[in-house]
Amino acid sequence: MFKETLQGVVEGTQGGLAGLLMDFEGIPLESYAKDGDFDIEAVGAEASVVVKAIQRATVMLEAGETREVAIQSEKMSTLIRVINNEYFVAVTLAPDANLGKARFLLRVAAPKLREELEN
Amino acid sequence: MFKETLQGVVEGTQGGLAGLLMDFEGIPLESYAKDGDFDIEAVGAEASVVVKAIQRATVMLEAGETREVAIQSEKMSTLIRVINNEYFVAVTLAPDANLGKARFLLRVAAPKLREELEN
Repeated sequence: MFKETLQGVVEGTQGGLAGLLMDFEGIPLESYAKDGDFDIEAVGAEASVVVKAIQRATVMLEAGETREVAIQSEKMSTLIRVINNEYFVAVTLAPDANLGKARFLLRVAAPKLREELEN
Repeated sequence: MFKETLQGVVEGTQGGLAGLLMDFEGIPLESYAKDGDFDIEAVGAEASVVVKAIQRATVMLEAGETREVAIQSEKMSTLIRVINNEYFVAVTLAPDANLGKARFLLRVAAPKLREELEN
């Protein structure tokens, strides 16, 4: 079920490359790559470091829990959505991808993933 | 000139709270807060840590230079735009703010800031 949800977000977004569900320790639970060569787990491992840095920062700033992080680099965009205290989803997109569509699809997928994870 | 540019982005965005121009060491160059009480420099100091973590990650992933980072937390959103190898701009917004407008205004402001910084 996790893989289908990831696939739905990646395939549903023009420019979507890969998606993964990972815990904050950097251990992948499930992943889906449109092109099998894409190393989404490397992206996820880095994403877990970034999300932890952000979580420490938002605690210090009393900004509340982090919900979403979007990182745009020259060669890719990475959209991260926090599912609960243990897991996040990261989706990697081509630089010219439809980021808004990916954000929408992830926002819709998040409660489904949360429900599955907590059942 | 820097302050006017920051003010333009903050005031031009519905829900804009504050903006700052800072170097990657966390030293602020200029800031503007709509409400004088808002501690944008604390946000910036945390943002510099996050951006450095992201830059290390993107180098490892060969993703090219980071251009923009958007962090959405429960109580605020922070939009970061990298200006050059030394400086970034961070704008803090209310959670219900018009993030797209802030992204647009920052994208337009970035080359102006770069030009001023490098002259």
